[in-house]
Order: sequence, then C-alpha cells, then structure tokens
Amino acid sequence: MKGKWVEVDKQRMDAVIVAANGHAECRKLRDVKAGDPIVCGHDGIRVTPEFRERDRLGFAFMNNDVSSERRVEGSVARIAKMMREVKKAGGRIAVVAGPVVVHTGGVEHFSDLIRQGFVDVVLAGNALAVHDIEFALSGTSLGIDLAAGAPVEQGHRNHMAAINTINRAGGIRAAVETGILTSGVMYECVKNNVDFVLAGSIRDDGPLPETLMDLITAQERYAAALSGNVQMVLMLSSMLHSIGVGNMLPSWVRVVCVDINPAVVTKLSDRGSAQTVGVVTDVGLFLHRLAEALGS
Amino acid sequence: MKGKWVEVDKQRMDAVIVAANGHAECRKLRDVKAGDPIVCGHDGIRVTPEFRERDRLGFAFMNNDVSSERRVEGSVARIAKMMREVKKAGGRIAVVAGPVVVHTGGVEHFSDLIRQGFVDVVLAGNALAVHDIEFALSGTSLGIDLAAGAPVEQGHRNHMAAINTINRAGGIRAAVETGILTSGVMYECVKNNVDFVLAGSIRDDGPLPETLMDLITAQERYAAALSGNVQMVLMLSSMLHSIGVGNMLPSWVRVVCVDINPAVVTKLSDRGSAQTVGVVTDVGLFLHRLAEALGS
Amino acid sequence: MKGKWVEVDKQRMDAVIVAANGHAECRKLRDVKAGDPIVCGHDGIRVTPEFRERDRLGFAFMNNDVSSERRVEGSVARIAKMMREVKKAGGRIAVVAGPVVVHTGGVEHFSDLIRQGFVDVVLAGNALAVHDIEFALSGTSLGIDLAAGAPVEQGHRNHMAAINTINRAGGIRAAVETGILTSGVMYECVKNNVDFVLAGSIRDDGPLPETLMDLITAQERYAAALSGNVQMVLMLSSMLHSIGVGNMLPSWVRVVCVDINPAVVTKLSDRGSAQTVGVVTDVGLFLHRLAEALGS
Amino acid sequence: MKGKWVEVDKQRMDAVIVAANGHAECRKLRDVKAGDPIVCGHDGIRVTPEFRERDRLGFAFMNNDVSSERRVEGSVARIAKMMREVKKAGGRIAVVAGPVVVHTGGVEHFSDLIRQGFVDVVLAGNALAVHDIEFALSGTSLGIDLAAGAPVEQGHRNHMAAINTINRAGGIRAAVETGILTSGVMYECVKNNVDFVLAGSIRDDGPLPETLMDLITAQERYAAALSGNVQMVLMLSSMLHSIGVGNMLPSWVRVVCVDINPAVVTKLSDRGSAQTVGVVTDVGLFLHRLAEALGS
Repeated sequence: MKGKWVEVDKQRMDAVIVAANGHAECRKLRDVKAGDPIVCGHDGIRVTPEFRERDRLGFAFMNNDVSSERRVEGSVARIAKMMREVKKAGGRIAVVAGPVVVHTGGVEHFSDLIRQGFVDVVLAGNALAVHDIEFALSGTSLGIDLAAGAPVEQGHRNHMAAINTINRAGGIRAAVETGILTSGVMYECVKNNVDFVLAGSIRDDGPLPETLMDLITAQERYAAALSGNVQMVLMLSSMLHSIGVGNMLPSWVRVVCVDINPAVVTKLSDRGSAQTVGVVTDVGLFLHRLAEALGS
Repeated sequence: MKGKWVEVDKQRMDAVIVAANGHAECRKLRDVKAGDPIVCGHDGIRVTPEFRERDRLGFAFMNNDVSSERRVEGSVARIAKMMREVKKAGGRIAVVAGPVVVHTGGVEHFSDLIRQGFVDVVLAGNALAVHDIEFALSGTSLGIDLAAGAPVEQGHRNHMAAINTINRAGGIRAAVETGILTSGVMYECVKNNVDFVLAGSIRDDGPLPETLMDLITAQERYAAALSGNVQMVLMLSSMLHSIGVGNMLPSWVRVVCVDINPAVVTKLSDRGSAQTVGVVTDVGLFLHRLAEALGS
Repeated sequence: MKGKWVEVDKQRMDAVIVAANGHAECRKLRDVKAGDPIVCGHDGIRVTPEFRERDRLGFAFMNNDVSSERRVEGSVARIAKMMREVKKAGGRIAVVAGPVVVHTGGVEHFSDLIRQGFVDVVLAGNALAVHDIEFALSGTSLGIDLAAGAPVEQGHRNHMAAINTINRAGGIRAAVETGILTSGVMYECVKNNVDFVLAGSIRDDGPLPETLMDLITAQERYAAALSGNVQMVLMLSSMLHSIGVGNMLPSWVRVVCVDINPAVVTKLSDRGSAQTVGVVTDVGLFLHRLAEALGS
Repeated sequence: MKGKWVEVDKQRMDAVIVAANGHAECRKLRDVKAGDPIVCGHDGIRVTPEFRERDRLGFAFMNNDVSSERRVEGSVARIAKMMREVKKAGGRIAVVAGPVVVHTGGVEHFSDLIRQGFVDVVLAGNALAVHDIEFALSGTSLGIDLAAGAPVEQGHRNHMAAINTINRAGGIRAAVETGILTSGVMYECVKNNVDFVLAGSIRDDGPLPETLMDLITAQERYAAALSGNVQMVLMLSSMLHSIGVGNMLPSWVRVVCVDINPAVVTKLSDRGSAQTVGVVTDVGLFLHRLAEALGS
C-alpha cells in the first residue's frame, strides 16, 4: 500500500481483506460494514506460503492420496517430530477432538499429551466433554464399560448423571477445583491451563455450563483461541468442528486430520490448505502410539 | 395416577417425566426445576408401542440389517405408500436434509415433493439453504455446475454471492416475496407454507438471516415444529441434524434414514426408535425415484 | 526399430515389451522365455495417448476427485453419450459386474442394455451368474425376494437349487437353449451373442459348469475377450474382477467405475489409466438411469 | 441312526450331509454322486453349539454391533487370552490375511506371532506373499518405502523384481532354504513349519510358484488345512479369502474379523457363524498391540 508491502492481520480462509490507513486485515462477511474498503481481485496481493519453513518442519512426507492401506507408525513418528519442533520454536498446538476419542480409548493418551505440554488449545463440542466426564466419573462411555468393552447394567444413566454432577458443581472448572472431577481430558485442560472452547450443536443434551450455545460467540472464541500463534492443528474424529476450525485458519498452519473413515479425511484434506496431512486409522490406537512417541 | 392411567404429554427420547396433579409430561433436564416431582424407575409405567397401527402402515418391511447391497426401488415404493397413508390419516411429515441433497441433484425432486404436499416441516442447517439458494441463483453448488458436473470459472464466488444476496434482501422469505429467489427447496417452503427451521453450527459461514445461531432457541423451534402431529420423518444425508431430531421424537414416529454411507445409517438406526428404516443409497437418485412414485 | 516407429501389439498394463524382427508386442512375465529380447528403460519409446480422440469422446468431464457428494444424473448422460459414440465408431463395450448388480435390482436394466446392443462382453465371476439365475428362476437373490425386499421362507435353498438346475441342464447355455432359463443377464448374453467369461474364486460354491476354476485359463479368456477392439469398459461393483481387467487393458481404453463405496472407486481410479471416471452411487439406480438414457 | 446319535464328520457351512452305514459326513455339492443318501429337512438332527466351552473361552464379550467407535485395546486383550487358551487346549489357530497387512506395517508383528507359536495355518492369496517378499527384499510395498512412508524412485520395479527372484529360486520354500529370503511372514512360515496355502485370483500377476491357480485344488487345500483341529481363525483385511474360509468352517470355530471398513466386518460377521467377533480398526496397529499382548 502506497508502494509498501503490508502484511494482512487475522488471516483466515473464509474472509475478505479490509485495507485502510496502511493496515490490512481479514474480516468475516458478517462483520463487514458499509463503506469498508475491501480488496477485490488478485492484483497487488502476494501469497507467501513459507515453503522453506514447511520443508524444514518435515512436511515433505505429505502424501496427496488418502488411503487406509498405509503404515501409520511412520506417520506417527513424523507427526511427533513436527510437534516437538513447533513447541521448540515457541509455537502453539491446537487439538480438535470428537467423542470418538473417548469411545476408542484415547482419553488416557490424550491426557498424557496434555501433561507433557504438547497441547495448548482444545476445541471441541459438548459431547467430547460429556463422554470424557462420564468416563472419569463412572468408567463408562454412553454406558459401555471401556475396560470390559461391554454395556453396564443401568449404564445409560451414567451419561445423564455426569451432566447433572457438573451442573450441580457449577461447571467443569468448578468440578475440578472442588475435587469432584479428578481425571480425563477436561480435568487435564483445567489443571494444565489449556485453553478449551466447547461449541454447542443441535444434537447436544444438557448442555454443560461451559458449552457455548450461542454460535456467534462460539465462533469468535474458537477464532480467538487459534489466533495466538497456533502453528499446528490436530483434527481427531470430528468432521463438524474440524470444518469449523479449517475455515478459520490461515493457510500456513500445519493440519493433521485423523479419522477411520477415508471419506472424512479426504473431505477435510480438500478444504484448501496446502499443508494438510490425512491419516486413516483408529484414533484410540493412534493417540496411544503418539503419546509413546512423544514420551520417549 | 391415583389409580388411573395418564398419558404423558410432549414425549421425547432425551427427557424425564414430570408428574403432578393428574398430569404428566416429558421435560428436558435443563428445564427441570427444584421440587419438580420426577418419575424414577420403571414401576407404574406402561409403554404403548401401537404395534397395530405400525403394521397397518406397512412397517413390516423393516429390516434390521443395514447394507448397500439392497434393491432400493422396493423400499421407495413402500416409503411412498406410507407417506400417502400418513397424509390421508391427517398426519404431518417432516424432512431433515443436509447439503448433499443439493450436491447430488435432489433439489428438483425435493421441490416436487413439497409442491405435491408431502412435506410439512423442513429441519436443516445453514448449509442446505445456502447451497440450495446458490443453485437457484447461479446453477452451481459450491461452484460446481450441477448440469455439466464441472467447476465453473470464478464459481467459488457464487457461494458468497448467494449469502450476500439474501442478506441484502433481508432474508429468505423476503427474497421470495420480492421475486429475487424464484426456485428451489427454500423457495418452495415459503410458497407452500412449509414450516422450516435452520439451526446454526460452528462451521457456518454467513449465516443467513433465518439461521438460528442460538442453539437453545434452535432446539426449541425444532421441537415445536415436530410437536404438531408429525407422524413420519425422512432423514436425508445429515447426521448432525438427524441425531438432533432423533433425540426429540417420541418412539412411535416412523423414521426413514437415507445416506450413502452405511455407517451413518447404522448409527441413526441404533438410536432407540423401534420404527426406523435405513436405506443405503444415493440421495439424489432416491429423491428422483420417490418423487416419481408419489407423482404417479 | 531400424529407424522406423513400430506399434506395440497386445498392449496391457502388467507386461513387458518383447521386440524382434520389426515386430513388438506386450507379453506377461510368465510367458516370457529365455532369450526373448525385452525392451529395458524408456529410451526409444513413444507414448501416444490419443488425447484428441479422448476429447472428442467427451472425456473432458473427467473429474479427479472421487466423492459421493456429486450429482450422478449428469454423469449418466455423458456416459450414455460416450457409449453411443463408441458403438457408432465400431468399437466394442465390455462390462465387468459383481453380484451387487443383482442384489440392488439392476438385472432388468442390465438386460435392457444388452438387448439394446450396448454390451459386447461380460466379464464376471461365478457369483454374478448364480445370483442372476437364482433371481430368474425364483425371484430371490440369496433368499431375499427382490420385489418385496424381504426374506422368503426356505429362501436360502433357492441359491443351491439354482446351481443344481444349471448343473443338471449341463450349463447356462444349455439351460437357455432348452427353455429352462428364460430371463436375466446370463439369458440375454446367450440370446444376444454377448461374449461372457466367468472367472472362479476361492469363495465360489458350485461352481457353475461355465465358471473357469483354472485361473491361468480364465486370465487368458478375459484378455482374449478384451482384445477385440474393446474401447470402453464399465466396471460395476466388483473390485476383484475390475482390478483383474484393469491389469489387462491398454491405457487408451475408457474406463467407468461405479461403486457405492468411495474407497473402491478411488482404488480402481488410481491404477494408472489416464482415462478413468469414477462414480460413487447406488449401482441398481445407476443402471436404471443409464438404461433410460440409452433407450430414449 | 438306528436309534443312535452319530456325529457328522468334516463339518462345513456350505455342504449337505451324506449318511450311510452308521456314518455321516458333510460333502460339497460338486462331490455328491448319484445314489448318495442325503439328509433332507431338519428332523432327526441335533445341533450342539457347545455353549459351555464358548463361555469358558471368553466369547461372552461378543458384541453384535459393528462400529468403528469402540475401544480396540480391550478387544485385543480378550483375543490374546482366547488364543492362549486355544493353544493350551491343543487347538490350532489359522490366520487369513490380505496384502493390507503388509501395507499397514503389520509384517513385523505378524512374524512375531508366528515365532511365538500362535499361528498354525496361513491362508492367503498371491498378493500377500508378493508384497511380503517385496518388503523383505527391498523394504518397499508396491514401491512405497514403509519406513519413510514415501514412494522410492523406480520403486514400482521392486514388485516385479520380487516375483522374478522367487521364480528364479524355484519358489518361496526354495528361496528360504537357499538364503535368498531371510525375513517376513512367508519366511517365518517356512522356518516355523506353518502350513500355508496361497489361492490364486483373477487379478494376480506372476503368480508365484506356490500360488494355486486351479481353484478346485486351492479349495481342497484350504479345507484340508482347516480340518486339523483348527479351533480359531483370525481374518485380517481380506474379504475374498475370508468368505472362502467362512464357507468351509464348522459353526463352532471361533472367528475374529479385523478390517478398517465397517461394511466388510458386518458382511463377514453376518455369514452364519454364531461365534464371530468383528473389530473395526487399523490392522497394522492391531497386530502390533496383539503381538505385545501375547509377548508379555
């Protein structure tokens, strides 16, 4: 602008660029006001993909084809290496996670990652928190005993009991502080000062006190959590929240999508980011291997 | 109560029964107040599955196994027959639909069903409406020309243009009334007085003025739309909104789930309703066959 | 060779080129003999992809991404157009088909295509023939009544009865000629002089007299059937036989893969042919639309 | 017979019972001869499901629903326990395996299971052996370096080179004995006297000398390998060979199906055996966990 290159602030995929007074930033359509000077066309825009850093961080192993017929353990090693490098460089790592993380036995390993300092932000929905807390309080997930792999008698009540317990305590944070909730992903988030945001959805029951049922607020809180130097995002078995997060990311953030359904991985990998790696595998076993790789 | 059987009002799957003064009704956990007399245990409760009516309406063809290796045309004939019977008996029919309905070419046939009077309620998200309106205004869906099956140059702009056009008009209803929107599912809803509710989600862009971003309100509006004698629900390619609707339904409502992914159909069919039929097929072709079967 | 370009005969994907005496042809590894002069490296080889003809035949609609979220009816129209053009140009069309074609109600429409003259070769396994014949003789497929969509009492016997009937008659051809088999895909093949080859597999029961249980012979018969100017192949719901056929094709043959499982379509589309179109949809409904498009 | 109960020999699912002279046995339809006295109807037949032993072996954890949203590590522990019990009781264990076992990095862990004595029979196709041997000779699988997870230059030649090497050696067994093949699943089979049978298919290239391209012979050899007190079968990522094996099993044999595609697991689980457990997960990671569980 006026003969100088200006860096665009608050970059994200689903926005326009508003430029004025030597300053430029991304703005969502609904936040644009009449009279805002919006950039039209591609002239005068320079895209900086930071290919050099990308290579340095080992994203060269990126493979375009999504398939369940791949050896996952090699990918785990490289993802672990990348996470270490991001942390060493002072970057932050966000994890988007669906309730399948709980059902497939990933809680213990996800908790490990948090305790080891590899998770700075958790973005999820009401269901992840409810299932994680049900598991922490009663050992079941939707009434299935995860150790035994079998339904527990009257186990379907554990789900509602978990919601009621947290409501009575006044929320997740309060339940941790008063010693009611003593393990699991949400517990570790509170204990380790991990920034977590729970976005509501039409299928939620409860919801928990921390779940944001006003989605304009939820989108703003997600975007704010991602804006603080998040350089890498792990998307674990949550198409809904992962698409939401994908829309908010600038193109240079490294994204790793993990899902057992190849169609989900393909869909998330196709959303425009040049730096997405898709892994088709069992999320519970993936988290176990990843925690092992980062722990050693 | 006091020796008399009392029917429970506002039945839904995810609620408790509050009973007092000879009256009983379902209430969501978050609406229960201290002191409410809640029914605990199963004693003194009688479940009426209305098996006789169920058979009369031809649900005997219900098959437990979900498979893509089935002849769909037989199922279409029976679903069409059931829809005719529900309408003849004065019942209402709700359709839950995801944007895949648009991508797979279902708009024309869904519109047909509405014009023929077989749809009383449409429950969906922001994306169905945005894609439907993009298709009505420019012939594309996410920039893909649906007739040619190929991307259109600069077609990705059509998506945002559709949102902007409706915003400028003041909403979907206003856009229909002022002649800006002249075809498609949303147009037919307005023209044929079909009750539609659009629930927001974390991945929405826009959103359109009619999309409810406060999900407590959205859940209440969904439940209200379903409460007016809805006897049958078609769930088309939308796991998120279908699970939301499933939670709100009493057990006697007939549910038909259609999705090309067998895992989605299995998941929706397993949510407790005894009256669910799953069909694994291409939704666009399914709607074409269904519109033909109902039109003849 | 000796300063002249020589065209390679019997082209296929999984072979080496043997060149001698001014003649060159593809030969499978197991048919190479000691002393055969084999072409090594890429020097002196010119690949002719016939891009011009490819465009002329409308393969420009080819889309790299495989997704179930596509409008199939546009693809059907283009595939029908291409089939008409191949036939008009004197080319032959082969269809590879699995038993899902029968289960999903495709028999009637596949029979239509054969009667209309659009099928010159059918390559399949024992199961397609057994299910097709069970349906022709008793109206069921693995004991499921395809019109009613429900299991028939003692229906599981129909499968074995079909095998026994054909065995007693001395084979499929004999059963057609003696009036025992009077409808279905195999019947139409016999009546319309369509070349059919049934390759055995480890899971076959029976097998039928025409099924080739010696797979060296089966591979040779498949290759021979494809060598007679086959310019287009439809692969319908049979990963096993489709991969087998894919190996045998020269790169210029147009291939259309149809399956309801996106992973199968991706896998078949990735096998090297530059001229493959993948369609993720319900095969029974696809055949219905295709027969309509070709009939009009 | 003549007032005495007689046990049926050679039980399998896809056969009839021939009974004469106080002896009864299962016979495939194609082996029945004119005049054989075949049992018709269900009268006079007693089915012995051996429920007591089934419970003793811990099959109580069997879950009817197939889902990717399950914790696999609990299932692994129970499968390991069952394998130990079968071996302690003198039973034999068969493994049916597809090439995905190699692609997903399972070779090392499968080899472990064989060395630990938990595998008595391997039933597979040509592809498992070719990919396993390519990996043993060059570290790639279809040209992909499994350690690095990336394609190797000219790597596609390794596949053909593996076939040629084994052909030149005169077969797998000869290649092991002459020190050409020194690791992998096939190597361990030879070294540990595991009975292996490779059944051919229409898509095979090569094939290797040990691959049976005459499928009548292959079916007989599979059945013979299963007849020697095989009490448990692991089916790993091979729908084709697993269906073949399923047809040959008596109903009391415990079957464990593992595949990342829930539709495959559902299909295999539905084939009549009352003793089938389905696990939807990544096969490479599954084998790693299983080898760990059995090694400790």
